[in-house]
Amino acid sequence: MILSCTAKLVRKGGGKVIKVGVVGGTGYTGVELLRLLLKHPQVELRVITSRAEAGLAVADLYPNLRGFTDLTFTEPDPQVLSECDVVFFATPHGVTQSLLPPLLQAGTRIIDLSADFRLRDAELWAQWYGQAHGCPEWLPQAVYGMPETNREAIKEAQLVACPGCYPTAAQLALLPLLENNLVEPESLIVSAASGVTGAGRQAKVDMLMAEASDNFKAYAANGHRHLPEIEQTLRDNQPAGASPVQVTFVPHLLPMIRGIHATTYARALNAERLPDIQELYLQRYADEPFVDVMPLGSHPQTRSVKGANMCRISVLRPQMRDTIVVLSVIDNLTKGASGQAVQNMNIMFGVEEATGLDIVPLLP
Amino acid sequence: MILSCTAKLVRKGGGKVIKVGVVGGTGYTGVELLRLLLKHPQVELRVITSRAEAGLAVADLYPNLRGFTDLTFTEPDPQVLSECDVVFFATPHGVTQSLLPPLLQAGTRIIDLSADFRLRDAELWAQWYGQAHGCPEWLPQAVYGMPETNREAIKEAQLVACPGCYPTAAQLALLPLLENNLVEPESLIVSAASGVTGAGRQAKVDMLMAEASDNFKAYAANGHRHLPEIEQTLRDNQPAGASPVQVTFVPHLLPMIRGIHATTYARALNAERLPDIQELYLQRYADEPFVDVMPLGSHPQTRSVKGANMCRISVLRPQMRDTIVVLSVIDNLTKGASGQAVQNMNIMFGVEEATGLDIVPLLP
Amino acid sequence: MILSCTAKLVRKGGGKVIKVGVVGGTGYTGVELLRLLLKHPQVELRVITSRAEAGLAVADLYPNLRGFTDLTFTEPDPQVLSECDVVFFATPHGVTQSLLPPLLQAGTRIIDLSADFRLRDAELWAQWYGQAHGCPEWLPQAVYGMPETNREAIKEAQLVACPGCYPTAAQLALLPLLENNLVEPESLIVSAASGVTGAGRQAKVDMLMAEASDNFKAYAANGHRHLPEIEQTLRDNQPAGASPVQVTFVPHLLPMIRGIHATTYARALNAERLPDIQELYLQRYADEPFVDVMPLGSHPQTRSVKGANMCRISVLRPQMRDTIVVLSVIDNLTKGASGQAVQNMNIMFGVEEATGLDIVPLLP
Amino acid sequence: MILSCTAKLVRKGGGKVIKVGVVGGTGYTGVELLRLLLKHPQVELRVITSRAEAGLAVADLYPNLRGFTDLTFTEPDPQVLSECDVVFFATPHGVTQSLLPPLLQAGTRIIDLSADFRLRDAELWAQWYGQAHGCPEWLPQAVYGMPETNREAIKEAQLVACPGCYPTAAQLALLPLLENNLVEPESLIVSAASGVTGAGRQAKVDMLMAEASDNFKAYAANGHRHLPEIEQTLRDNQPAGASPVQVTFVPHLLPMIRGIHATTYARALNAERLPDIQELYLQRYADEPFVDVMPLGSHPQTRSVKGANMCRISVLRPQMRDTIVVLSVIDNLTKGASGQAVQNMNIMFGVEEATGLDIVPLLP
Repeated sequence: MILSCTAKLVRKGGGKVIKVGVVGGTGYTGVELLRLLLKHPQVELRVITSRAEAGLAVADLYPNLRGFTDLTFTEPDPQVLSECDVVFFATPHGVTQSLLPPLLQAGTRIIDLSADFRLRDAELWAQWYGQAHGCPEWLPQAVYGMPETNREAIKEAQLVACPGCYPTAAQLALLPLLENNLVEPESLIVSAASGVTGAGRQAKVDMLMAEASDNFKAYAANGHRHLPEIEQTLRDNQPAGASPVQVTFVPHLLPMIRGIHATTYARALNAERLPDIQELYLQRYADEPFVDVMPLGSHPQTRSVKGANMCRISVLRPQMRDTIVVLSVIDNLTKGASGQAVQNMNIMFGVEEATGLDIVPLLP
Repeated sequence: MILSCTAKLVRKGGGKVIKVGVVGGTGYTGVELLRLLLKHPQVELRVITSRAEAGLAVADLYPNLRGFTDLTFTEPDPQVLSECDVVFFATPHGVTQSLLPPLLQAGTRIIDLSADFRLRDAELWAQWYGQAHGCPEWLPQAVYGMPETNREAIKEAQLVACPGCYPTAAQLALLPLLENNLVEPESLIVSAASGVTGAGRQAKVDMLMAEASDNFKAYAANGHRHLPEIEQTLRDNQPAGASPVQVTFVPHLLPMIRGIHATTYARALNAERLPDIQELYLQRYADEPFVDVMPLGSHPQTRSVKGANMCRISVLRPQMRDTIVVLSVIDNLTKGASGQAVQNMNIMFGVEEATGLDIVPLLP
Repeated sequence: MILSCTAKLVRKGGGKVIKVGVVGGTGYTGVELLRLLLKHPQVELRVITSRAEAGLAVADLYPNLRGFTDLTFTEPDPQVLSECDVVFFATPHGVTQSLLPPLLQAGTRIIDLSADFRLRDAELWAQWYGQAHGCPEWLPQAVYGMPETNREAIKEAQLVACPGCYPTAAQLALLPLLENNLVEPESLIVSAASGVTGAGRQAKVDMLMAEASDNFKAYAANGHRHLPEIEQTLRDNQPAGASPVQVTFVPHLLPMIRGIHATTYARALNAERLPDIQELYLQRYADEPFVDVMPLGSHPQTRSVKGANMCRISVLRPQMRDTIVVLSVIDNLTKGASGQAVQNMNIMFGVEEATGLDIVPLLP
Repeated sequence: MILSCTAKLVRKGGGKVIKVGVVGGTGYTGVELLRLLLKHPQVELRVITSRAEAGLAVADLYPNLRGFTDLTFTEPDPQVLSECDVVFFATPHGVTQSLLPPLLQAGTRIIDLSADFRLRDAELWAQWYGQAHGCPEWLPQAVYGMPETNREAIKEAQLVACPGCYPTAAQLALLPLLENNLVEPESLIVSAASGVTGAGRQAKVDMLMAEASDNFKAYAANGHRHLPEIEQTLRDNQPAGASPVQVTFVPHLLPMIRGIHATTYARALNAERLPDIQELYLQRYADEPFVDVMPLGSHPQTRSVKGANMCRISVLRPQMRDTIVVLSVIDNLTKGASGQAVQNMNIMFGVEEATGLDIVPLLP
């Protein structure tokens, strides 16, 4: 193999170069970020940190990257990181909060894939994450990184909080109904399921293949951390005067690697005068590069977005009764995490939004 | 290997002998029936028919049965079948209707695993199954084979219609709420998922491993044939005067072999005065050998019932809001089909209900 | 659910009662042992120990056992264990050696599923397991628990060392060729593959479903601990004067839960005068209850033995050239571990060998 | 979604444009070809044919292609096809032979992914494929499309026969040993395993997920069609005077979607004087863009090449005995079929060989 030969081919191309750092690149969102960044024509990946794996070549941990990079994990160094144009945090929650302030003060832009800045309310955050928030003073600066609702704010943001995987799928599914006040806000149900990469790369018995394969179960049905995030976003997008949404959210663990499927249910407020909801969705997402409203009667499949920064949505009204069903799928590691992070980067740096993300999903 | 040596070991034991025939034993419910019947201590399996495979040794089609039987598939012969005490039909819908009448007239008892006699209303059946019902005159005789609601009627029945797999899981999950009129009847949602054996053993492209594995999708969300069955059963068990239930039912295809998981949602009618629903479920199923109400806060897993005639149920009330969530799991081929059929046989013939069904689920 | 009701059904039946203890029952061979022992008609399971889980109800760790036992894990107590007729050790290697001597001195019979007593040579053991053997003085007492070669010795043994999973599959495949000196002893190749339960229930990153599913790889190809065991057994069964076998053994990790498949290759010594090897295998295993020689041209599937104490074997001679191929499959947890352990117990206690093991494999 | 927006981004770029047609694009190698061709910066995909699906939009059959193409399957039309610079045949064997001659006569270049022109000997072909060869007169023209041995001939070829998937993996693993006459030619063993996409997209019962998942088996062990192809290639690359290789080839079916793993065994001819084989392999493949010799002691994983045109190889000599083990992995649909086809196209048209193929494998 000619080391790195292939990587260089595409890396060129005109346009500005964005100097990028990654903090905490050993997990699954980390390797997914690397997959995307190493082929992004305007990115120069300068540093990737990991306390646990410092000194290890990235390609020794992730053999799929052999030939594409000769980077080595290093200890996080604020000086080095602050010389980047943008630093991605692909860390567990709680870690961002300690490393972040010096970088923000140095003017570095941050794209945070962790949960640290998704909730605006520090107390709500503390309640769901079981610890006090480490730097609540930066919460007001954070912009929720969902391009489909926040594109303008993202352009100028210094600190972008990337949405969670379940929230991405659920919110894209339900937003058009809420924005137009078409459903009872207390009736919302999100019955969603995730592949095992959603649990990260930690060694846990219940994520062993012998435990998780050929099996299906709900988990955290009494309260998952993505619930307050979903409710916050949906409430933000309700028209004035609407009573605030309440969501019943039940996540499930799928015996597969990648993908989230959200089956969402909402009761029509005024079933007889419901507009054409298929048309409503088509229009709402007509200009969105990464939301695909499927033809009437379709059922989106998780594999149709594998490895791609895409959300596919189908809208149904079974038996023409009062309950509307919206189905959505994403790849939890791509549109649900690292792909959306790169999409945010493109927006922040004025690069064409689909750059580096125009990937054909891998099927079969 | 000593042919059949092991099978004989357990076959003896006291008690009556039930002469059994199976029509259509080549599908997955067929081989599951054989697995159970060949080890049932009071069953003498006399004949198994298949037009397509007549002449083939059963163990040549299903290598797991090598050493347990030397039966060969034969053409269905009403004379031979009518000499059995009971005949199981493990056939696609529509087939039962043509073979059944002569057997019923001969006094043979029938346990039908197909959909032919599940709906009482021939017109409703025709509407959902796309053909006229072949012997509507026998519909009034059919007893719906759900022991948990119909045990007494099953004892005397000549014709038992075994419930569908989704209906078994959904009904056991929701019955206690409906029987006690605790929830809004129009609010019911059944978000359920099935392993691929639910689609049978037909060669279909979308059931290929290359299509169905590492994937998840909803299907038939606009109307699945199990919907009217679920509504019929739940309505039968509502108290007088309650408005009839309406169910939104979305089935999904799981990348696994066996198992159904139903996540059901219902809105409390009178949330402030809701009784202790965990206690309600424990009492409702206290005497049921094959329904297991799990401890508070549990999430049942499909693998915990693999190969066993068991339904495990958990009841939750997330955030103590008004929506109740009931989770249930079954093995679609066992409690969802062939195991329940054997349970019905035991009830019909006065045999201890768990005979031949006291199987430890295979885990991991 | 009626607690334990079903378990009692079968537990009775005539014959002696064997009092059984299990040390280290929390792993996969542990739960598989419980599945078998709890339904064994002549076993009274008295105690199951686990230092890590002492105090936990067995059914809380393994939900498939709900309703079948109310045993709780306890600290290992030599006094309690020595009151059993037989104690199974389902522990990692090295543990047996410390707990075993007092039990052996008390006259308790031991069935050891660990690797501690499989190799007769303490130095060879130390070399492969990276530690000194803890009680080499008991090595001469240990009987290798492979009924197909050692049945008579097992009957009288106080200490039985159950074969490893790969060795069981490989040895049953190759024994008839070696016993009859039909192949070049240095030409043996065992290309084998195991489901992930072979790696046990420890939390390891490379056994996560996100790592091990949709993937295949060899491992330990430069030297796996089962290699000296395979060579020892095969050499024991060569005729006098034959040059000792040398095996090239490459294990692989399969993206499935249970099952071992061994593809073994050997070069005929005298290809022109090779006897009918299909007939040779049929005769060699004619009286073995748990070895099934498949029809000519068959390919055994791992799923055909899922959950069952069975080894299926096919013999081929591709292109009628000089290389013989023998394929064998077992369930690594059953015939490859706990089922074989129960088979050994039956032999030791004069119980019909198939008692408690006449299980139809779960297919599909 | 903005239809096709993303596709256009990359399609530009300088350099010549290759007009491409695809015959038979509905199978798995077809959709894989489309995935690669639609993103190839120098390809203009003009036509894709399918008799069965004529009139259907490609993106309706393969939802992963939504937004990347608005092509529709058409009936194969020799006129339209002959206007292409190159036509790929992704058809079952036997089909190429009838459509090919008019295109060849028109001067169109052909890359055939079927088996029709892989064997030089029409009689050998007929014997293994069970039918007479349809156009043996073109066999002498066909160049075997393995760049690692035939690059120069491919440049000029009008008709390239792409290697089979197993042969690609086996040949790359064994070639350096054979080229240097280091091993006994009759001792070669290829124990290989393929994901289910290797069987194509035909609806067959034994490829259903319920049959093929959680299972492993050998198949066609008595003679697989890839055997003569492997032997032909290896013999072509032996030094003059060496006795011709004989391969024992046993393929297995893996419960996963993509990937081939070959475990190959060969006996050293002169074990004491064996050169450093790791070094030998490193040098042999030093200039190959798509062969990666892994570090000593590695075990390549199929997932490390998922979706990529890469072969990773490890060389071992267990126990320093005389049997050499070489492990190789490819993605059967990419380096084993469509990726290699595109690599051949690049060579034929003087385009940088890695163009359109510099894809990071999708992991996890």
